[in-house]
Amino acid sequence: MDFRLIQTCPDSKARAGELITPHGIVPTPVFLPVGSQATVKTLTPQELKDIGIPMVLANTYHLYLRPGIGVIEQMGGLHKFMAWDKPILTDSGGYQIFSLAALCQVNDDGILFRSHIDGSQHFITPEQIIQFQETLGADIIMVLDECPAHDDSLEKVQTAMTRTHQWAERCQRAQRRRDQILYAIVQGGVFPKLRRQSAKYLASLGFAGYAIGGLSLGEPKEVTLATIEETVVLLPESKPRYLMGAGSPDDLLEGIARGIDMFDSALPTRVARNGALLTRQGRHNIRNAAYSRMEQPIDPGCDCYTCHTFSAAYLHHLFSCDELLGYRLATIHNLYFINNLVQEIRNAILNGTFSSFRDNFWADYQPTDEQTRISQKGKWLKSRRSGE
Amino acid sequence: MDFRLIQTCPDSKARAGELITPHGIVPTPVFLPVGSQATVKTLTPQELKDIGIPMVLANTYHLYLRPGIGVIEQMGGLHKFMAWDKPILTDSGGYQIFSLAALCQVNDDGILFRSHIDGSQHFITPEQIIQFQETLGADIIMVLDECPAHDDSLEKVQTAMTRTHQWAERCQRAQRRRDQILYAIVQGGVFPKLRRQSAKYLASLGFAGYAIGGLSLGEPKEVTLATIEETVVLLPESKPRYLMGAGSPDDLLEGIARGIDMFDSALPTRVARNGALLTRQGRHNIRNAAYSRMEQPIDPGCDCYTCHTFSAAYLHHLFSCDELLGYRLATIHNLYFINNLVQEIRNAILNGTFSSFRDNFWADYQPTDEQTRISQKGKWLKSRRSGE
Repeated sequence: MDFRLIQTCPDSKARAGELITPHGIVPTPVFLPVGSQATVKTLTPQELKDIGIPMVLANTYHLYLRPGIGVIEQMGGLHKFMAWDKPILTDSGGYQIFSLAALCQVNDDGILFRSHIDGSQHFITPEQIIQFQETLGADIIMVLDECPAHDDSLEKVQTAMTRTHQWAERCQRAQRRRDQILYAIVQGGVFPKLRRQSAKYLASLGFAGYAIGGLSLGEPKEVTLATIEETVVLLPESKPRYLMGAGSPDDLLEGIARGIDMFDSALPTRVARNGALLTRQGRHNIRNAAYSRMEQPIDPGCDCYTCHTFSAAYLHHLFSCDELLGYRLATIHNLYFINNLVQEIRNAILNGTFSSFRDNFWADYQPTDEQTRISQKGKWLKSRRSGE
Repeated sequence: MDFRLIQTCPDSKARAGELITPHGIVPTPVFLPVGSQATVKTLTPQELKDIGIPMVLANTYHLYLRPGIGVIEQMGGLHKFMAWDKPILTDSGGYQIFSLAALCQVNDDGILFRSHIDGSQHFITPEQIIQFQETLGADIIMVLDECPAHDDSLEKVQTAMTRTHQWAERCQRAQRRRDQILYAIVQGGVFPKLRRQSAKYLASLGFAGYAIGGLSLGEPKEVTLATIEETVVLLPESKPRYLMGAGSPDDLLEGIARGIDMFDSALPTRVARNGALLTRQGRHNIRNAAYSRMEQPIDPGCDCYTCHTFSAAYLHHLFSCDELLGYRLATIHNLYFINNLVQEIRNAILNGTFSSFRDNFWADYQPTDEQTRISQKGKWLKSRRSGE
């Protein structure tokens, strides 16, 4: 058994459970920090443990290009390489190939692409992606999927979905290691019909877990949420559901309310390095002059190392000087905040108080306005090459 | 009493002692990591303590410009601002004004300069520099000095020296806080006559400690060492001697052999961020392909967190990807190595084995060749704006 459902909320689809993995038990809902290149940017594994992070994500595409799967194999696998002895999930890298690689050509066999780092040409198949992930040795591994853009036509999205289904079957057949847990990825873009078709089809193949891919890519938030709702109802109750690429505080809360158990996103760590600190009120830009003389920590109620040790003024100073310590301290705070939020949500589900928790959250929280959010996301998608 | 001399080496001028400061006792010889902007780049104060660092340096010029002396005063002083409760030395910033600021004009009153950050114009006097340092609240503070270039003419260096002497007296008179320890700075460039004159004159003023400034600025290493020798003999035996801006392993060993008690330098932290790891064999460039598959740590005998936790291959990977964690891990190693080296030297002095320690060191150590060293130093001096 890879997943145990413990409690469901009577007023929503929220649920609390546990992932059972070779490297330990992970309470759900859970947020996985992104460590694509075998490092959660700026932090040591010890700091991740101190924050309370139960599981991290790494990326097969990134690690295949650098340092190479063979290097990590020689170093004794991904856990040992990055000195992280708790559970790891490796993404197949499907999304990263389609969004980062140059000259990406897909056919039924696999994907031909050029590395975004050195332009070298590669062809990889679903079978190889499974083999790479078996060599890396993560606890949970993902099928190779084809991930269309959020504004692609129905025909294009349908073709990608059908191919994703075929590849999911091939990945399933290619799996040799039985100690790793393989998840499928539902595609279908923002088309409810396709999402339902994809969820049903993949559910019929009997995977150990189901991810929802191809969301949070620039579409409006209400479309994201509606698509999650359409999809979740067709996924098996007894299996974990994983929303890929979502990680703002409101994404987490509303995803959980719709039945999601697992999340990953570079958002908390990426915005930290831009000086955006997350609190229950929303995002605060530490570069703002208002913080230059603030003796209190950025989030006075927070128990993280950053808030316990430093004033907002010190953090403001570090960002003014572009000091690397600033990026670290902001990352520690944001991951602590997100991890703590998810734990509080889990406790609320267990205590039967999720609905009031959700109401209280929204009474305090000021989300990033939709236009700013989409424009920032778009800029990031265009510019990112940093492997997060 | 601010300094206690415990042991002198019978075969050299090496000595072991203790600095007694308001924030605790510091064993000497000691190396001070550079935290110009109230942060030792990439590290938390907790990490510095874990490494065993007994004291750090910050810079009045940098802190005056950002965040401003008044901000740090409002935050309760420099110790509290940067969350470091052990001793701090603040440099006056004389050297930084002359080397970093634009349009720097000096007269007997003080220095007129433009900020290297925003071009704003400032005029500061020796009295103000003392006042700033009293507000910051470091344990040891420095006089304002005029620091000529290493290739300036004798006349220019002499004028700067004479002014440095006048300023030293003004700084002495301006001091109000008696809990802070004020050091003078010997100048005189590479001219033995001037160095002797400067050392004698400042010694006659009765400072609590004596720094040697204006060295390690691009002159050949034998000139640096000869100048230290000329100077040290004229400084009082009972007072600490501080060689400013020197911090390579061989600088430390040979400086100590010549009677130096204190050092500061950005070298160990700066070269770390460039991927140069210090060991008893010399500098190793972790970006070198030879490390890409090395399972051992970079320095197998080292007890630092980096060497205890990660393979050289992982560190190589982080640097290949320009991951910030790489800069941190290399910084931790280099500071641990340097701090440990100085401790070992101190123990050798106390045990009467300094001479054999020195011989053994040179049997293993391959210094950076002189031409490379001078060219790298020159490039760095021209390009640095990062506040280290």
